[in-house]
Amino acid sequence: MTMPRGARGLFAPERVAVVGATEREGSIGRAIMENLESFAGDVVPINPKRDEVFGIAAYSDIGAVPDPVDMAVVVVPPHIAVDAVRNLAENGVKNVVVITAGFGETGSEGAAREHELQEIASEYDLNLVGPNSLGVMSTPVDMNGSFGPEDALPGSMSFMSQSGAFITAVLDWANDQDIGFKDIVSLGNKAVLDETDFIEIWNEDGDTDVILGYLEGIENGREFIDTARDVTEDTPIVLVKSGRTDAGAQAASSHTGTIAGSERAYEAGLDQAGVLRAENVEELFDYARILDGQPVPDGDDVAVITNAGGPGVMATDAIGDSDLNMASFTEETVERLGETMPDEANIYNPVDVIGDADNERFKKALDIVLEDENVSSAVVISCPTAVIEYEGLADDIAEVQQKHGNPVVASLMGGERVEVPADTLRDHGIPNYFDPARAVRSLDALATYRDITELDYEPPIEFDVDRDRAEEILRSVENRDTNRLGVEAMELLDAYGIPTPAGDIVDTPTKAREVAEGIDGGVVMKIVSPDILHKSDIGGVKVGVEDEDVEDAFEDLVTRARNYQPDATILGVQVQEMVDLDSGTETILGMNRDPQFGPLMLFGLGGIFVEILEDTTVRVAPVSERESEEMIDEIQSAPLLRGARGRDPVDEDAVVESVQRLSQLVTDFPAILELDINPLVATPDGVQAVDIRLTVDPDQL
Amino acid sequence: MTMPRGARGLFAPERVAVVGATEREGSIGRAIMENLESFAGDVVPINPKRDEVFGIAAYSDIGAVPDPVDMAVVVVPPHIAVDAVRNLAENGVKNVVVITAGFGETGSEGAAREHELQEIASEYDLNLVGPNSLGVMSTPVDMNGSFGPEDALPGSMSFMSQSGAFITAVLDWANDQDIGFKDIVSLGNKAVLDETDFIEIWNEDGDTDVILGYLEGIENGREFIDTARDVTEDTPIVLVKSGRTDAGAQAASSHTGTIAGSERAYEAGLDQAGVLRAENVEELFDYARILDGQPVPDGDDVAVITNAGGPGVMATDAIGDSDLNMASFTEETVERLGETMPDEANIYNPVDVIGDADNERFKKALDIVLEDENVSSAVVISCPTAVIEYEGLADDIAEVQQKHGNPVVASLMGGERVEVPADTLRDHGIPNYFDPARAVRSLDALATYRDITELDYEPPIEFDVDRDRAEEILRSVENRDTNRLGVEAMELLDAYGIPTPAGDIVDTPTKAREVAEGIDGGVVMKIVSPDILHKSDIGGVKVGVEDEDVEDAFEDLVTRARNYQPDATILGVQVQEMVDLDSGTETILGMNRDPQFGPLMLFGLGGIFVEILEDTTVRVAPVSERESEEMIDEIQSAPLLRGARGRDPVDEDAVVESVQRLSQLVTDFPAILELDINPLVATPDGVQAVDIRLTVDPDQL
Repeated sequence: MTMPRGARGLFAPERVAVVGATEREGSIGRAIMENLESFAGDVVPINPKRDEVFGIAAYSDIGAVPDPVDMAVVVVPPHIAVDAVRNLAENGVKNVVVITAGFGETGSEGAAREHELQEIASEYDLNLVGPNSLGVMSTPVDMNGSFGPEDALPGSMSFMSQSGAFITAVLDWANDQDIGFKDIVSLGNKAVLDETDFIEIWNEDGDTDVILGYLEGIENGREFIDTARDVTEDTPIVLVKSGRTDAGAQAASSHTGTIAGSERAYEAGLDQAGVLRAENVEELFDYARILDGQPVPDGDDVAVITNAGGPGVMATDAIGDSDLNMASFTEETVERLGETMPDEANIYNPVDVIGDADNERFKKALDIVLEDENVSSAVVISCPTAVIEYEGLADDIAEVQQKHGNPVVASLMGGERVEVPADTLRDHGIPNYFDPARAVRSLDALATYRDITELDYEPPIEFDVDRDRAEEILRSVENRDTNRLGVEAMELLDAYGIPTPAGDIVDTPTKAREVAEGIDGGVVMKIVSPDILHKSDIGGVKVGVEDEDVEDAFEDLVTRARNYQPDATILGVQVQEMVDLDSGTETILGMNRDPQFGPLMLFGLGGIFVEILEDTTVRVAPVSERESEEMIDEIQSAPLLRGARGRDPVDEDAVVESVQRLSQLVTDFPAILELDINPLVATPDGVQAVDIRLTVDPDQL
Repeated sequence: MTMPRGARGLFAPERVAVVGATEREGSIGRAIMENLESFAGDVVPINPKRDEVFGIAAYSDIGAVPDPVDMAVVVVPPHIAVDAVRNLAENGVKNVVVITAGFGETGSEGAAREHELQEIASEYDLNLVGPNSLGVMSTPVDMNGSFGPEDALPGSMSFMSQSGAFITAVLDWANDQDIGFKDIVSLGNKAVLDETDFIEIWNEDGDTDVILGYLEGIENGREFIDTARDVTEDTPIVLVKSGRTDAGAQAASSHTGTIAGSERAYEAGLDQAGVLRAENVEELFDYARILDGQPVPDGDDVAVITNAGGPGVMATDAIGDSDLNMASFTEETVERLGETMPDEANIYNPVDVIGDADNERFKKALDIVLEDENVSSAVVISCPTAVIEYEGLADDIAEVQQKHGNPVVASLMGGERVEVPADTLRDHGIPNYFDPARAVRSLDALATYRDITELDYEPPIEFDVDRDRAEEILRSVENRDTNRLGVEAMELLDAYGIPTPAGDIVDTPTKAREVAEGIDGGVVMKIVSPDILHKSDIGGVKVGVEDEDVEDAFEDLVTRARNYQPDATILGVQVQEMVDLDSGTETILGMNRDPQFGPLMLFGLGGIFVEILEDTTVRVAPVSERESEEMIDEIQSAPLLRGARGRDPVDEDAVVESVQRLSQLVTDFPAILELDINPLVATPDGVQAVDIRLTVDPDQL
């Protein structure tokens, strides 16, 4: 849903009401009151049975509160929570956090209650979090409006989670690691505000530098993509989207009632949204911390400085695994290192300052390589030795990093001796990991974010199409028993400018011959019937039919169809220009609808490439020209389109254009539930869509 | 090399000499003496300039020591180290650790010194570690024979590392994490003892339960495979082999002078050896710890118990990513959980005991699921709540794990509050991770190790072959200018029982016709010349030649070849039975030699599958029947051999047999440096090798 204005009041209220405030031991109402004790603003307990709660004057009803309340936390039982929210709304409270559980997650009665909440929120323009939420926190105003056991430390990352318990676990751990947050929200059932709203809120919030989240589903994929693209220009978004696997999706569904969209749609959608997707908790915070602490690199070339060869090799391997490269130093750098380092040192990348290096040598080496214009970032690795002193080294690394402004990650290896130096590094935004590979992966995420910020999200091209004609063809399904269309809908493609072979569907042998005579050379003839899906299997396709044989072929095709299925609806026979499959490559272009992301385009080469090698790629439509090009680039068999094995390259632009035109068609008509062009034959001279199948929902026309 | 008997004296000596012992500040000789202070046996300083070192009587020379010395650590400078080692050997010391650097790693002079060391070791049957080693440690005798800054804690993992600095880093960290070791060895330059020797030593050592290592190369791949297969029956081996990527291999090579074998060979070889390969340091210790602490699971079905839905989904995703499955509970289990858990709980896997679960409920749930015969292992996840008490939970988990004997991993999430409970779990061998995914990955490694122990390494089948004939054909290369052979060597395949089409190579048109007349139908004719590699390009191949046209075709082929290259050696024309490529599938079967692992077999489908999709698989030869079958299974395009797209399945047994027969050939003849059968055509009726190319080193015949 679209976020109502002023939603920031959720995180920076002046006066917070607690509906259901109490002192009763073990109750959530008490936990909230205790957590709000340090709140910088006013707390207003609402409880008809009490005059005060923890010494603060309580009111029987929100209507009785003399001063305006910005935000309310609702903890009363589910059967009265809806009325409580209505009452808040009627009294002008715009921001409501419903902690109470027992809504959509519990069955039909709960779902009805949740629907009521949505209606109230819509009527009164409420910013409503939850229900079934752990609450919200915001450190600048010292607000802990949750019933979790821990306060958050101040910081510049804002965190949303579809699992409240996960917030408690993360906070416990983060506090131990000195990791701070700006805002935290437990999304609960997302009856009203969802992930899209919060990335929008935090985008407008100058104090949030990184957005991170744990999600089990995304409510409205397309809206999320469009919003996130805007957000990630300035603020990186790092998400764990769980339920990635079939087993996980099933578990997520039973946990939150999220309808499972396909993982492929999420993968494509989150990528198109510019989100950095973390696979697990460790990656989530590794990525978030480096994004929070370090500038993005201006290139992908990494220098490695180490006092030990082995870990240097490990870092180099990790760089080989990533999208980063080992920097190649300028002659000047090699010379300067040669002058400064001992003879046994390796002055090429990875730089090995060797085991007897003291802090000074380390610092000097880092300074020299960061000076190099060929170096965009650095990984500093150290094993404990008698001469290296980690605390000083941490200061040196921070100092040199700040001097040059390139991102630096560290792997000062060891146990206890690393604790204080790691704190020093963290204070300067430099992550430190025992494992050099993990340090490199963080740097890789930083470079990926740089790529995201540099993306230009140009709008999809709007081709000049015949939309009315397309609608007319789609409407033909209204007269059918089935909602499927086949070759009889080829003109749909013509209407949207996707080339099809010359030809027509005819209902008499004479007309068939007329069509064939208008086409050079032999023709292909196919029976057209919504009831016969596998035409070839029943001999319903004839190839290379000469003009004089067309009439006989017509009769024969119809007879075969009748024999196969006497009651089949026969729409006629398609007479089509032969497509030269020898000089062409068969591709498949299709679309189906994902419950979260909507139209999902698929592209791949035909035959074994789709069926056996599963070499396909997907994108959420509408797709831009760049996204369409990426689809062709991404398939493994792309070289076959590009002149591999001595063939002429196909007209790739024509393929790219077809992808975009189909994208426009399926975006224009949500009634098209599924569509496959198979094959779309690509040749050096263009493309031709030879066959089509689609499913239409006439109610959406 | 083969490990000399008694090498265990390295780790359990009674009397250790330190050659170069001194009290000089900052010296390695002093560091060793200090580290050996706690040694349970006797330390004997050797230093001609001192009467005593740290109050222990010193000797001028090993010959002067009255009692026998088991082991000596050598730290004297490189130019006298070789003589020192010889002196030790002459005086009956069998175990020598050469700390001194300045050998093979520093150029030709050092390499010569290293060669001398090898000769002495060979002459006197020395167990020699190093040179350029950090030293050795063994905790049962409190021996720290290294110059590293830390002692190891006692434990049952033994660790070898090709990087000494990495040992210091690991020890510093491990001590902090309470991780102990039995033996540690810094391999140094591996002049004598290498990784194969140490896995053998530790296999015989009852106190080593897990072997772990950091390697940048393996000296003798085949020997390592054969030894490791034996070792891993009882003792798991976990290795980081760095230099995995091109960049990493280059860095490793400049670090240790290791000649880079191909990563594909390492991947195949370590897999065939039954080694668990870790990608990075974190995985190395994660895998090692669970292997050390938990029994292997008797199946792959995992139960997840959690008090929070979100982290339960994360664990489920990780199981989906792994080779493990979510266990499906018996009805009885579901019933018992139903009776014991509250209504809101999820009693199917992942079991959610929900946020208000106390320790008792958690314990009960774990006990019930581990009772289930469908459950092989469990992951226990907890977020901090007001009612859960982690310390007690850790005890409960350990108790229930011990009761049932199934492996259990934990993810008690949080910060400081987890420290003590994690110690408790560790004391019971149960790893605990903040990230549930990491817990699952460890469990996955444990199951993989179980699979390894269950493998039956049957020897390669020995086919009845004509080895003399093969040798004769290979010797034909001795009369050539080049060391390449082509179709003229087809009989090599016949000699080893790999079917080839009927035919012969002839040198006159008349003979060509004679051969053709003996073959049904048309024939294929090809020019045979070691100087013409791409026969088709010059029109040097004719297909479907009828008997009456054979003579003309002969003349034409020879003319074309002469025109193309007047001075080309023309061995004749091959007249070959036509192979039905329509009913067949072209495959490629090849071999090249890896510097570490020797003959590396390659299999894949021909054409685009090899050239564009790079869909091939490799194994170190000789291969067993099972390994040959795996090669076919592993390629992505395997379904094309098995009747995909309506074709008849090929005779897969014949393909598997050809792989084994070629394996036997290349194992029998190390002189074959490279060999390609391309194509090996597989049909429903068998296989036929249509073309062959090989490179032979006549000096190895």
